Amino acid sequence: MEVSIIAIGDELLIGQVTDTNSGWIARHLNPLGWSVRSVKVIGDDSEEIFRAIDDAFAQTDIVLTTGGLGPTKDDITKPTLCRYFGGALVHSPEVEQNVLEVLEKRHLKINTLTAAQAMVPSSCRVIQNKVGTAPIMWFEKNGKVLVSMPGVPFETEQMMEREVIPQLIKRFVTDEHIEHHTFVVIDYMESRLAMTLDDFEKQIPPFIHLAYLPKPGVIRLRLSGKHHDASVLHDEMERLSILLKQTLGNAIVACDDKPLAAIVGDMLRDRGMTLSTAESCTGGNVAHAITAIAGSSDYFTGSVVAYSNTVKHEVLGVSDDVLATHGAVSEPTVEAMAKGVAQLMHTDCAIATSGIAGPGGGTPDKPVGTVWVAIKCGDRIECECYHLPGTRDRVIDRTTNNVLCRLIKMLRDISPAS
Amino acid sequence: MEVSIIAIGDELLIGQVTDTNSGWIARHLNPLGWSVRSVKVIGDDSEEIFRAIDDAFAQTDIVLTTGGLGPTKDDITKPTLCRYFGGALVHSPEVEQNVLEVLEKRHLKINTLTAAQAMVPSSCRVIQNKVGTAPIMWFEKNGKVLVSMPGVPFETEQMMEREVIPQLIKRFVTDEHIEHHTFVVIDYMESRLAMTLDDFEKQIPPFIHLAYLPKPGVIRLRLSGKHHDASVLHDEMERLSILLKQTLGNAIVACDDKPLAAIVGDMLRDRGMTLSTAESCTGGNVAHAITAIAGSSDYFTGSVVAYSNTVKHEVLGVSDDVLATHGAVSEPTVEAMAKGVAQLMHTDCAIATSGIAGPGGGTPDKPVGTVWVAIKCGDRIECECYHLPGTRDRVIDRTTNNVLCRLIKMLRDISPAS
Repeated sequence: MEVSIIAIGDELLIGQVTDTNSGWIARHLNPLGWSVRSVKVIGDDSEEIFRAIDDAFAQTDIVLTTGGLGPTKDDITKPTLCRYFGGALVHSPEVEQNVLEVLEKRHLKINTLTAAQAMVPSSCRVIQNKVGTAPIMWFEKNGKVLVSMPGVPFETEQMMEREVIPQLIKRFVTDEHIEHHTFVVIDYMESRLAMTLDDFEKQIPPFIHLAYLPKPGVIRLRLSGKHHDASVLHDEMERLSILLKQTLGNAIVACDDKPLAAIVGDMLRDRGMTLSTAESCTGGNVAHAITAIAGSSDYFTGSVVAYSNTVKHEVLGVSDDVLATHGAVSEPTVEAMAKGVAQLMHTDCAIATSGIAGPGGGTPDKPVGTVWVAIKCGDRIECECYHLPGTRDRVIDRTTNNVLCRLIKMLRDISPAS
Repeated sequence: MEVSIIAIGDELLIGQVTDTNSGWIARHLNPLGWSVRSVKVIGDDSEEIFRAIDDAFAQTDIVLTTGGLGPTKDDITKPTLCRYFGGALVHSPEVEQNVLEVLEKRHLKINTLTAAQAMVPSSCRVIQNKVGTAPIMWFEKNGKVLVSMPGVPFETEQMMEREVIPQLIKRFVTDEHIEHHTFVVIDYMESRLAMTLDDFEKQIPPFIHLAYLPKPGVIRLRLSGKHHDASVLHDEMERLSILLKQTLGNAIVACDDKPLAAIVGDMLRDRGMTLSTAESCTGGNVAHAITAIAGSSDYFTGSVVAYSNTVKHEVLGVSDDVLATHGAVSEPTVEAMAKGVAQLMHTDCAIATSGIAGPGGGTPDKPVGTVWVAIKCGDRIECECYHLPGTRDRVIDRTTNNVLCRLIKMLRDISPAS
C-alpha cells in the first residue's frame, strides 16, 4: 500500500518550520508494509492545495495532509477541502464539545477563534482530536481516502497512533509485507564500505534493497525487503543479516536503528559501568544526547558544562598552571577535565571536550574548528584533536558524534559483565 | 522569482533522514525577493525524478534538486538527468582532480567509487564542489535552469552560498521585492493574540501578509510583503511594524527572528548579567540551547547536569534533608539547585530544572511530565511546576522553552545598564 503526504503551511516554505511529520508518518507506516510514495510541501494556497490533492490521488489511494488548520486567519485548507470533496462548512457540536474539553484541560476558555475550529466540511467524517483543538477530518472519494490532520507534530503523532493508523488498517487490506533491518557501522568511510560489501551485494535478491545512510563518523546500512510471502522475505532477510555480520564483524556496533547515545548506554549497562561528561565547546550537547535516551539515569550521573576557565579550575580541578601553560583548548586540559569530572561524579567513564566552535575565538595556531577531546574508559584515557570544518552547530554536532563513537570503540574492548 | 525544490533519497521517504536543505534554501532565497513555490520529496526512483522535474518546470523557471548523488549504488539521479536533458555520462578530469583535492584534505585516498563521482552528464555545466566529492551540476532547457546538488546539508549550504546563489542571481533578474519582518511574542496564546490583532489586521494592504508561527510558550508573527516598488513596500512594512509594537507593547521580546536563547543572551549582555544552569530532567538541553548561540561565553559560565541525587547534594549543595523530605522533583530542591549553581559559578542568574521526563519514573502523585523549575534573576527567585503532556523529547523541549521564556519575563523588569 502506498501513501502520499501533503504538508501545508507558508511557514514550511520560508524555512521557519521544518516538516518532521512526514518522517514520523513514514517510520510508523513502514512496519505495516506501507510506504510513502512522495511528500509535497506547499503553502497556504487554495489552488496549490487543490492541485496537490489531485496529483496525489493520481498516484496513491491514501493521501495524508498535515497543517493548515490553526485557528488563525492564514489558514484556507478547510474551504479548499469543501471545494474538492463537496459539501459546505457546518458547525459540529461534537467538535465544539471536544474543543471545550481540550481547553479545559489546559485551564483555558473557548473564544470565537477556537470556536471556529468547530466548523467542519459536511462531506467529512470527524475524528475527535483528543490532544488539540483542530479536528481530524476523514474524506472519501472514488474509493480513495484523504485524512486531514493538524500541523503540530505532537497532535499528529498522537492521533495517528490512536485513531488514524488503526482506521486506515481497517479500511485498507494489504497483502505485501515489508521488512527493514538497520545496522550501525563505524570504522568505515562510505566508499570503502561499499567496496568491502561488493560480494555481499551480489547476493541480494531483487526484492531486497541495500541503502547506505551515512552520518559523520557512522554509517547506517538498511536492508529493506518487500514480498507477498512473509516467510520467504523473513528467511532471506535473516540470511543476509548473518552474512553482513560475518563480513563486517565488530564494525557493526548495533543491529537496530538507534542513536549512538543509546548504543553507548546499552554497552555501559552491559558492563555495569557509569559515565559523566565535562563539556566546554559542546556546551551540554553530549549530556543532552545521552539523557535524551530513556533510562539513561541507570549509567549517567551528570555533567559539568565548564564554559569559563574559572569553572574548569574551581569545579573540575584543572590546575591554573595547566590552563596558563597550555590553554583551555589543549590535551592536558581535556585530560584533567575528564579525570576531574570522573572523580567529582564517581564514574568509571568520562568524556571531556574543549575547542573553538566559532565563529569567533580562533587564533593562527588554534583556528576555529580546533577541538580537543579526552575519553576515559575505566583506567584507559585517550585524547584526540580534531580540526572540524563548518559552522558552530556542525562543530558541536561532529564533536558529539565523534566522542560517542570513540567511547563505543573503547567499550568494545571491555567484555560485558556476565 | 519562484523556485521549486526536489529532495531526492529513499532515506527521506522512510523518515530516517529529515530534509533540512529545503528550509535552508528558502531562508537564503527570500532575501533576494525569491520564494519557494513547493518542495517535492521523492525516492531514488528514475521515473519519479523524471516526472518531478517535469512538474516543477511547469510551475517555475528554477528547479533546485538535492540528494541522490552519493558514491554508493543506491543512486540513480545522474543517469535520469542525462535522460531528461540529453547527453551521456562522460568522465571529467576537472571533477576527478577536485575529488582528489577534497579527499587529500581529509587525508583519504581516491577509490573506484569516489572516482565514479567524476562521471557527469555531458549536457551539464559542472560547478566544482569544494567541500565534498559530489559535483554540482547546472542544466539549462528552454530558458529554464535546474541545479543538482548533494544531499549533505553542509555541502549544499556551502556551495549554495559560494556559487549557486550568485550564479542564479547573474542568470535571472527579478523586479519583485520581498520583505519579511518577524516579531517574537510571549504572554499570548494564538487565538487570543489573533483577537487582539483584529483591528491591526484590517490595516494590512493586500500585498502584505501576516502569518502566525506558534511554538510552545512563544508565537512568532511574520509580516511578509511583495511589491515591485521597494520603497512603497518598505514604508508600508515600517508603518505596520510600528503599529504592531504599539498594539502588543512589551509582549514583543524581539523584532527579528531569533531563538529564545539568543533573546536571553542579548538581554543578559545589555544588563551586564551572567547565567548558569543546574539541570536534572533537561539533561543539559538548556545549556546546549544557550551555548548554541555564538558569543554566549560573554554571559554564560557553565552548567551542572545533576542527574543523580549524589551530584545534586555533593556538587550543588542540595541538603540530603531536602532531598529526603521533598524528593528530587520538588520546589525546595530546584530552588536549592538554582542557588547552589549560582554560588558555584558566581552568576547573577540561574535556571534549575528537575522533573520526570518519562517514559518511566512516574508516580501517582508525581506522574510523568511533572517538572519543577526555579529561575533566579538577581535577588529574585521564582519557582513553577509544570504538568507537560507528551513524549520524553517534548517534555525536555517544552521545559527548555518555558524556562527561557520565564527568564526573559524576569529580565524584562530589570532596566538595561546604560
